[in-house]
Amino acid sequence: MFVARVTGSVVSTQKVASMTGHKLLVVEPYRLDEKKRQSLVTTGRTFIAVDTLGSGEGDFVLITQGSSARLTPETKTLPIDAVIIGVVDTVHIDKKSVFSRQES
Amino acid sequence: MFVARVTGSVVSTQKVASMTGHKLLVVEPYRLDEKKRQSLVTTGRTFIAVDTLGSGEGDFVLITQGSSARLTPETKTLPIDAVIIGVVDTVHIDKKSVFSRQES
Amino acid sequence: MFVARVTGSVVSTQKVASMTGHKLLVVEPYRLDEKKRQSLVTTGRTFIAVDTLGSGEGDFVLITQGSSARLTPETKTLPIDAVIIGVVDTVHIDKKSVFSRQES
Amino acid sequence: MFVARVTGSVVSTQKVASMTGHKLLVVEPYRLDEKKRQSLVTTGRTFIAVDTLGSGEGDFVLITQGSSARLTPETKTLPIDAVIIGVVDTVHIDKKSVFSRQES
Amino acid sequence: MFVARVTGSVVSTQKVASMTGHKLLVVEPYRLDEKKRQSLVTTGRTFIAVDTLGSGEGDFVLITQGSSARLTPETKTLPIDAVIIGVVDTVHIDKKSVFSRQES
Repeated sequence: MFVARVTGSVVSTQKVASMTGHKLLVVEPYRLDEKKRQSLVTTGRTFIAVDTLGSGEGDFVLITQGSSARLTPETKTLPIDAVIIGVVDTVHIDKKSVFSRQES
Repeated sequence: MFVARVTGSVVSTQKVASMTGHKLLVVEPYRLDEKKRQSLVTTGRTFIAVDTLGSGEGDFVLITQGSSARLTPETKTLPIDAVIIGVVDTVHIDKKSVFSRQES
Repeated sequence: MFVARVTGSVVSTQKVASMTGHKLLVVEPYRLDEKKRQSLVTTGRTFIAVDTLGSGEGDFVLITQGSSARLTPETKTLPIDAVIIGVVDTVHIDKKSVFSRQES
Repeated sequence: MFVARVTGSVVSTQKVASMTGHKLLVVEPYRLDEKKRQSLVTTGRTFIAVDTLGSGEGDFVLITQGSSARLTPETKTLPIDAVIIGVVDTVHIDKKSVFSRQES
Repeated sequence: MFVARVTGSVVSTQKVASMTGHKLLVVEPYRLDEKKRQSLVTTGRTFIAVDTLGSGEGDFVLITQGSSARLTPETKTLPIDAVIIGVVDTVHIDKKSVFSRQES
């Protein structure tokens, strides 16, 4: 999995029937800043993931990719390869807080 | 999933029998412009995806990769790893429109 | 899927028993030339794929990766992650021919 | 699989129900130093993996990605794409030790 | 699949129970030298793969990744994403030998 920030959403009307009613969010994977190792920074990549948790723009979330994206009750028959499995509260690296939902 | 632009098509006569009659489109993944964060830009990569939605050249579409590409009614027994699951109407990032089908 | 050029072959005598008799080809993924967008160029990567279609050196082919490589009649029980699913006749991008088997 | 160093952890309260009680660790993939080939160095990437072995910060571990992350007794129904399958004791490359748990 | 050179091994005592007794080798993916196209060169990446064929350090091998790594008799229930499916005897590209086991 990886940590990503929810930065937007996608609307698609003409789609595979089973996708009706599923929220599609734009997520940008984050990684640790290599130099200072004190914060998370964007990787510059853009993915689309299905959300079943009510995530909102600005949230940091956990993304699962591949066939395992179908291992949640709401997504098991969907043609999707990425799903949000959790909203991130905190990330600690090297025993320091590099992300806290409350402070962001 | 990722957003891609349909830019072309592939013709293959000599192929695995189950692929007969399936439309193969050239798609180029797009990502958010990192600097200004106001538009989608090509990643420079080129993929081939099966289309079951009647997508056309110039359309922005949602691509699912991997085994989940077989989770649509038309593709479930195909030896494919990429399928178009929706035609994109709009993409909003940072609460701004970065793509709108009507304007493009 | 992606378009690749067949450039060689691999011989392996000591192998998993189920692989006996399967042709292993060297394939190099191609992508659209980013600047002029008029031809396909190599990505510089090298993969090995199973061929069941009688592809030959110089052919442009369609490659499927991952578990879907096992979705052809000849490959369904093989420990493989890449298969040739078609020989490419033509690729059109931006309404121009960027590859034609007859001309190559 | 790849070798990674455990460098932190993630807390997520709002998550897919099946994920309750599973430890989420931050892991950074390592590779051989290309020049001297005498030690493992970080790739600069950041992943999140489920741990079922009691791994701790500073440990070098083996990570399995994709659907196989569900092939352990504790993870078989989880929507995850990365799991720790072992704690690394030693890595030898070119007949030299490039990592030893006891010395680290 | 890809061609890789076996360059080392990993020892892990504390691991998922099903992994007991399986040999873990360090493998480095190789690709064709882009300029001269006359030899295979390392990609600089480092993976760990399960070996069931008695491969040794220095051997060039074929690696299968993903769920298909479980499609051999010895690996079908293992939480692994990479397996050696063959020891490479020869690689020919552009009708020239770029690797031969006997000469290496």
